[in-house]
Amino acid sequence: MGSRLKLVVAYDGAPFAGWQSQKNGQAVQDHLERAFAVVVGEKIRVHGAGRTDAGVHALGQTAHVELAGRSLDPSQWTAALNNSLDPRIRVLRCRYMPSSFHARFSAQGKVYRYRIWNDRILPPLEVGRAWQIARPLQLETMIAEAGAFVGRHDFSSFAANRGVVEQETERTIRSVQVKRQGRVVTVEVSGEGFLYKMVRLMVGALARVGWDEARAGEIAERLREPQRAWASSRLVAPAGGLILIRVRY
Amino acid sequence: MGSRLKLVVAYDGAPFAGWQSQKNGQAVQDHLERAFAVVVGEKIRVHGAGRTDAGVHALGQTAHVELAGRSLDPSQWTAALNNSLDPRIRVLRCRYMPSSFHARFSAQGKVYRYRIWNDRILPPLEVGRAWQIARPLQLETMIAEAGAFVGRHDFSSFAANRGVVEQETERTIRSVQVKRQGRVVTVEVSGEGFLYKMVRLMVGALARVGWDEARAGEIAERLREPQRAWASSRLVAPAGGLILIRVRY
Repeated sequence: MGSRLKLVVAYDGAPFAGWQSQKNGQAVQDHLERAFAVVVGEKIRVHGAGRTDAGVHALGQTAHVELAGRSLDPSQWTAALNNSLDPRIRVLRCRYMPSSFHARFSAQGKVYRYRIWNDRILPPLEVGRAWQIARPLQLETMIAEAGAFVGRHDFSSFAANRGVVEQETERTIRSVQVKRQGRVVTVEVSGEGFLYKMVRLMVGALARVGWDEARAGEIAERLREPQRAWASSRLVAPAGGLILIRVRY
Repeated sequence: MGSRLKLVVAYDGAPFAGWQSQKNGQAVQDHLERAFAVVVGEKIRVHGAGRTDAGVHALGQTAHVELAGRSLDPSQWTAALNNSLDPRIRVLRCRYMPSSFHARFSAQGKVYRYRIWNDRILPPLEVGRAWQIARPLQLETMIAEAGAFVGRHDFSSFAANRGVVEQETERTIRSVQVKRQGRVVTVEVSGEGFLYKMVRLMVGALARVGWDEARAGEIAERLREPQRAWASSRLVAPAGGLILIRVRY
């Protein structure tokens, strides 16, 4: 009888081709599947909670695999997988779950954090880890504007085109928190689900209002009158500032 | 009449071949000299306060150049140089100085910070930026032991061989502070000057005492009875954990 193993995974998005398996084998999923192959001697499919684009980091991506049995303890799995993984991918913990658990379909929501470096010069150790915005950001305006996202809305205006058009574009956002700590402005978004590039389009719109208050009210308007085409002309916050913090089950 | 320009420079140590000019042109000094060549149209020698090894980061490395005149304001120099530099090297600020100023010979001291990640798993975004030590470190012991470094000593036991043997191996350490914040243990060392790999050998000795208290007293002993050969068999803390914080003038 099979066993379902849940994995919580962290990675640096910069050196990999995003989460989802790629022909060049350089996606995080590919690296994890090769690590399983080393440990169990055969190819095992790794199912993630969702994709992250190239450059996007994760502190708590979640995945599951279906194993033939319980040959190893969860902590042994963690150690064995990390032993053959690139150090920029780490399995933080493993846990056996009932077979009804599915990393993607059981997910209740996700939490993302976006980092903006609000200063003239981006420190070298922040390259690929924050979006540099030189113009001063008005936090009060951003916080007020962020409130418009909360609740259930048609997010068509905040979805990039991935080739396929999602049929169902309503999503529920639980909270959007905008904070400043010195030169770092963080936007933390918790929601039940996200369209393609939705967080980065949300942050792009928030930042724009932050440096140009004349745009206040624009977000609420775009949620009231969803326009798919609007997103394609909008500011997408760069991938490197985004971190998948955790998947809620 | 010439003008002397002082530069404060930050860099990510990982992608470069250390500070000092290399044949492959991939040292930080080489990158800065190419940036000056772009701006002024001729090769200008950049003089650093001191070398940092490949992998060692800087938040406040300092350098100077001798220019033909004052064609640009300091802030214009900062912008022009950053414009042609790799983003992982940033000129933080520039300032015109009297011709007696020399980045190396005028330096009164340097401050280094070393980062240890004291846990079983090194987070992916810490790769190349911290030394992972899984064994628990006893801070009390490390703090007590660190006190032995303070003052003027013969640091032969804490100097690696760089081909040439320094004639003068006495150095003065002003302070060594060991702190813990969660899983991160930092060692901050302020001193008037340092021998080759001295900070990393000091941190290696401190960490060893931190996980093996039986070694307490070893540092004081090695300072009382300096042994050049001792260092070569010792633990050198990895380059990626080290940051040159500032040069004091």
